[in-house]
Amino acid sequence: MLCQSSTELMELVTLVKPYTKQGKVANYIPALGRANPSDLSISVFNIHSSKCQSAGDISVRFTLQSISKVITLALALVDHDEEYVFNKVGMEPTGDPFNSIIKLEMLSPSKPLNPMINAGALVVTSMIKGGTVQEKLERIMSFVRKLSGNNDISYSEEVAISEYNTGSLNRALCYYMKQHNVLDANVEELMELYTKQCSIETTCFDLAQIGAVMANNGTCPITGERFIPIEIAKICKTFMVTCGMYNASGEFAIRVGIPAKSGVSGGILGIVPNEAGIGVYSPSLDEKGNSVAGLKLLEILSKKHNFSMF
Amino acid sequence: MLCQSSTELMELVTLVKPYTKQGKVANYIPALGRANPSDLSISVFNIHSSKCQSAGDISVRFTLQSISKVITLALALVDHDEEYVFNKVGMEPTGDPFNSIIKLEMLSPSKPLNPMINAGALVVTSMIKGGTVQEKLERIMSFVRKLSGNNDISYSEEVAISEYNTGSLNRALCYYMKQHNVLDANVEELMELYTKQCSIETTCFDLAQIGAVMANNGTCPITGERFIPIEIAKICKTFMVTCGMYNASGEFAIRVGIPAKSGVSGGILGIVPNEAGIGVYSPSLDEKGNSVAGLKLLEILSKKHNFSMF
Amino acid sequence: MLCQSSTELMELVTLVKPYTKQGKVANYIPALGRANPSDLSISVFNIHSSKCQSAGDISVRFTLQSISKVITLALALVDHDEEYVFNKVGMEPTGDPFNSIIKLEMLSPSKPLNPMINAGALVVTSMIKGGTVQEKLERIMSFVRKLSGNNDISYSEEVAISEYNTGSLNRALCYYMKQHNVLDANVEELMELYTKQCSIETTCFDLAQIGAVMANNGTCPITGERFIPIEIAKICKTFMVTCGMYNASGEFAIRVGIPAKSGVSGGILGIVPNEAGIGVYSPSLDEKGNSVAGLKLLEILSKKHNFSMF
Amino acid sequence: MLCQSSTELMELVTLVKPYTKQGKVANYIPALGRANPSDLSISVFNIHSSKCQSAGDISVRFTLQSISKVITLALALVDHDEEYVFNKVGMEPTGDPFNSIIKLEMLSPSKPLNPMINAGALVVTSMIKGGTVQEKLERIMSFVRKLSGNNDISYSEEVAISEYNTGSLNRALCYYMKQHNVLDANVEELMELYTKQCSIETTCFDLAQIGAVMANNGTCPITGERFIPIEIAKICKTFMVTCGMYNASGEFAIRVGIPAKSGVSGGILGIVPNEAGIGVYSPSLDEKGNSVAGLKLLEILSKKHNFSMF
Repeated sequence: MLCQSSTELMELVTLVKPYTKQGKVANYIPALGRANPSDLSISVFNIHSSKCQSAGDISVRFTLQSISKVITLALALVDHDEEYVFNKVGMEPTGDPFNSIIKLEMLSPSKPLNPMINAGALVVTSMIKGGTVQEKLERIMSFVRKLSGNNDISYSEEVAISEYNTGSLNRALCYYMKQHNVLDANVEELMELYTKQCSIETTCFDLAQIGAVMANNGTCPITGERFIPIEIAKICKTFMVTCGMYNASGEFAIRVGIPAKSGVSGGILGIVPNEAGIGVYSPSLDEKGNSVAGLKLLEILSKKHNFSMF
Repeated sequence: MLCQSSTELMELVTLVKPYTKQGKVANYIPALGRANPSDLSISVFNIHSSKCQSAGDISVRFTLQSISKVITLALALVDHDEEYVFNKVGMEPTGDPFNSIIKLEMLSPSKPLNPMINAGALVVTSMIKGGTVQEKLERIMSFVRKLSGNNDISYSEEVAISEYNTGSLNRALCYYMKQHNVLDANVEELMELYTKQCSIETTCFDLAQIGAVMANNGTCPITGERFIPIEIAKICKTFMVTCGMYNASGEFAIRVGIPAKSGVSGGILGIVPNEAGIGVYSPSLDEKGNSVAGLKLLEILSKKHNFSMF
Repeated sequence: MLCQSSTELMELVTLVKPYTKQGKVANYIPALGRANPSDLSISVFNIHSSKCQSAGDISVRFTLQSISKVITLALALVDHDEEYVFNKVGMEPTGDPFNSIIKLEMLSPSKPLNPMINAGALVVTSMIKGGTVQEKLERIMSFVRKLSGNNDISYSEEVAISEYNTGSLNRALCYYMKQHNVLDANVEELMELYTKQCSIETTCFDLAQIGAVMANNGTCPITGERFIPIEIAKICKTFMVTCGMYNASGEFAIRVGIPAKSGVSGGILGIVPNEAGIGVYSPSLDEKGNSVAGLKLLEILSKKHNFSMF
Repeated sequence: MLCQSSTELMELVTLVKPYTKQGKVANYIPALGRANPSDLSISVFNIHSSKCQSAGDISVRFTLQSISKVITLALALVDHDEEYVFNKVGMEPTGDPFNSIIKLEMLSPSKPLNPMINAGALVVTSMIKGGTVQEKLERIMSFVRKLSGNNDISYSEEVAISEYNTGSLNRALCYYMKQHNVLDANVEELMELYTKQCSIETTCFDLAQIGAVMANNGTCPITGERFIPIEIAKICKTFMVTCGMYNASGEFAIRVGIPAKSGVSGGILGIVPNEAGIGVYSPSLDEKGNSVAGLKLLEILSKKHNFSMF
């Protein structure tokens, strides 16, 4: 499966390129800080034609970071029933930054409001089945490989180690939830798994394929094989609309109107339901943690093709 | 235009009726407290057939309360451009109760996070054009009459006065925003307008018709006349998904998956995009302020007909 | 009773004078903004000798502002018993700015944490006995006149009107508390009384005399007449230590160690228990609302004479 | 040095005994939960006579818990200058529970407001000099032995281990501050030291002796040897007034009016400046974490002997 360059997308990338000069590349760990701020690429996988179109250098690999949250949520919902999962993590958007700890103290019980903020994602990751960290990680990576159709997907050891070593805030969230019996896991093991999950490397093309499966309600658009139960695909897409773009999700829903999940690496996974999966990459971030040029590109594309669900 | 009773909906109402025994009727003012907790009615207006089906006593009139927030938002966006409106009110869900004041102090500027919480709705109402309170109110009521096709729509003076007299919390929100230059209005005049707007009385059938216009992207499904610009209809529907059901919006998006706005009177305005408008009424509320039986009814209906947008 | 200039205090004023260039004069109303930022004066009334010493221009009059909070607290405790007063307002320092509203929402009941923050002071002022605003104001002013021994004390109509007209934040606090039944008063009448109380004008010398009564446990150091019951004087002094200097009270207790209450006019009322009353005035404020030079002057004076209670 | 039983104190204990039935013994770890809720004892060490009086079973040993916070603060101020210490921890009371994390996120920098809340105490403990945890612990214990004149003082390994194993909330505070560069320590080592420090066992008599040193401005009342510089003793006493009794410090200052520090074991260290040191023990706690009977006993004693500083 190759992705062909598209004149339309290339023009769009040229148009949006100046936006890469706004924002800043995440630099809390060296490996992320080395990203090229002017990179901008997009890949769109049409589920009807099973054809992929692209622009920019789609061979650039980047780590999933928060994009992994929606993937592990799907896997956790495969591993457990809804009731089990949502007994430990809520369904509501927060209005707070993704790494905020305030609501954990203000609300009783200290249940994270949704699986797209760090606290919620940590709880979800702790639910992935497997005997060891390695086994759980393998299950997550296999799931990503299956969704993307890319068997070469792995994670960046360098990024994982850096994030593990600097992850004090996530440890604070874990211990706070552990105190309140919302999390029941060995924190260091969970941190190892979580940082490795966040460090899984993909390209725009991989993201477009993953998005295509979701757009196709959980079924591979090429083979027709079911990868995710339709109900779980629906839940994931809903969270991507209400809380996928950090505390800019509301504005994104209005400006773009599609399920999407961003990561601080600069990647965005987009879904046009029953139409296409989209992968975007541009590492310069706005202050809420979303790719500046990526947002702009999706906004223009959505307006042009009337992608908004609303 | 009449609404015909439907066997399917009647069976649904019978099925859900026991849920009216859960929750409590809002009683912060006597007029709301007199509602019959066992009332349950629904009206569905199909935009293709222009036919309406119903069950329960759809002649019961109830006040719009927070449902009015989405209607005045539409009118404010007719009166001003997007930039003007969203310069004063944000687009993000909050995770807080609809009447919370905390974020106004924590965030700088003290801009309400979205137009569906009280602070935001008060700002939006202050934007309605008109020389006097009466003139502004007439414009809002005319708008509701046009959307619902019901020229008899008016407001309850009793409810308006009660809410005006007991509206200390809304006054607190107003003065807090006034201090921070987010609101620039005479508070008592705004309170008069806002409480009258909240006291506009409709039936389920009226709500279904209003919803049908939104479902039809702003155009009357019967006459084809454009009542709301398509972009504004889209914005309203988006907010109804991300923040229409108070701080239970995220769960509603997952369980039901349609744009909806509830009020503490027990009414719910629902929209199945490109399909139908829905009005539901049942005054027993859960602790977040949503109609218990109304939620259940919409959930079952949505699952059965696959209404979810996701 | 005259206040004689003192070489020691004059040297101190000269030493501290450069600090008047730091900070900013409060400018939220024009009348305060017109204060001369380089003004610095002090008056110390010794309760044993009944002699007063001073430096700087102690004829400058300034409004009490928050200093009035401790005086109305004393009067409210004269008008009602402790249980009545502290049923409506707490005894705990807050760590928040004096005008914060957050804790009113976070705590249940919405009782202000102490009488030295605005919310608490508004509740206390609402307790002053009297049939009308004018009558209550007269009682407060009579009390100030008695404590200071100055029958000419009055209030600035200009400041009162300005603060009444711009007092949106205090109205927000009032309405929030009214909603939660912590405050039971006509808000506009309370605002009139409160802003007039804050606008009572004194000199450093007046403050020193008021402080001397408190230092003397409620008894006039000159005549021996009891002005405040000893228990009430004690309560006032305690609040002045734990919360008298806004959210810099803790540091002031360590650096200076005496009961004190500041106002945004730049005045500070200080008490050296069983020794002296102190009045300081310098209108340039730090970001927490305390007089920069006033703080410095009191710190040096306290260290030199070992005034700290601790 | 023996402590003689006193008729006055015995009558007081009898009078207050019924209050031991209110409140609850801390039970978050088994060792604390085993305390006898009806225990009540007091020891008062007069610095002028160097005589000690007592009532109740003053041989009962209990762990210092939060009482240790004031002792390590003194030691940290011996180890470093004021500027170093207060660069990392503030001087302000909080109004929040001792284990709250909210202000760390709301304030910038994430500096704990004072050394008497857990976050602040953890930072202070991290400043104690020593090459290893064991060395630092020895220095703390030596300091306690010196202050109390009791060379047998040690810590409870059982309590320390339990608190170490269940200390998720304190770990959350540590990691949160580590993320924001307010804390620079190995969290597990700090937790080991902190939980051992909290588990140091004393009797009422030991506390009374420690308090006597503080009451005597840092000098041993028996030998006249200086144990703590006078400035440091003053700082400790000030914090004990403004924040020593958790978020009931303000009320305690009004009702009792002496520097005091409580612990969840039920112990209270009290200081009557220039008069006496007091140790109280009664393990039934109110909801803020203070000993119910201990508070009552101190209140009556203070009123009777006019101990209040105010």
